[in-house]
Amino acid sequence: MSNTNVSNFIDDLNKAFESRVRLGMMSLLVVQEEIDFARLKESLQLSDGNLASHMQALEKLGYVEVRKQFIGRKPNTQYTVTELGRNAFSAHLLSLEKLIKQMQS
Amino acid sequence: MSNTNVSNFIDDLNKAFESRVRLGMMSLLVVQEEIDFARLKESLQLSDGNLASHMQALEKLGYVEVRKQFIGRKPNTQYTVTELGRNAFSAHLLSLEKLIKQMQS
Repeated sequence: MSNTNVSNFIDDLNKAFESRVRLGMMSLLVVQEEIDFARLKESLQLSDGNLASHMQALEKLGYVEVRKQFIGRKPNTQYTVTELGRNAFSAHLLSLEKLIKQMQS
Repeated sequence: MSNTNVSNFIDDLNKAFESRVRLGMMSLLVVQEEIDFARLKESLQLSDGNLASHMQALEKLGYVEVRKQFIGRKPNTQYTVTELGRNAFSAHLLSLEKLIKQMQS
């Protein structure tokens, strides 16, 4: 693997997905139609604040859509991945895959 | 992919390697016997301070060894990956690979 290759693959990775938490969030969002705050929090073992701030960042980038509603009297927050988010995450995983293949060859 | 799986794979990822810069550094270190500061800096397009602080973190974890010397009168800093670092990085890439495979299935 040349040094130029390494620099290129780093550029191809999406900074929005680099942390383990973001990888986990996006993975769940991509495989589930819709997921609510409580379920995400439990699945990823995050604090409310941590989950909310990561989600806000992904929402700002247009990768995630948030829907707030009431179920009975309880507030409920649902997240879905956008097409933009789905495509960006696929591209990120593809770049990671390329890196891994190069490291193994 | 179940929610439990996502939580497990996140635990398996090594926080030390999650940023793109660290992935790039470790990739270069693993494929090259030894690499010096200037070359790493150029390959990864980093500032001196940024490169030094990431390297210090990897050194503290026992993943990288640093050798400072003089070439003529010029100071020269060489980095090598340790066996611990090589194994930890392989394990990290393997966990990423598992995630990617699950996302594709």
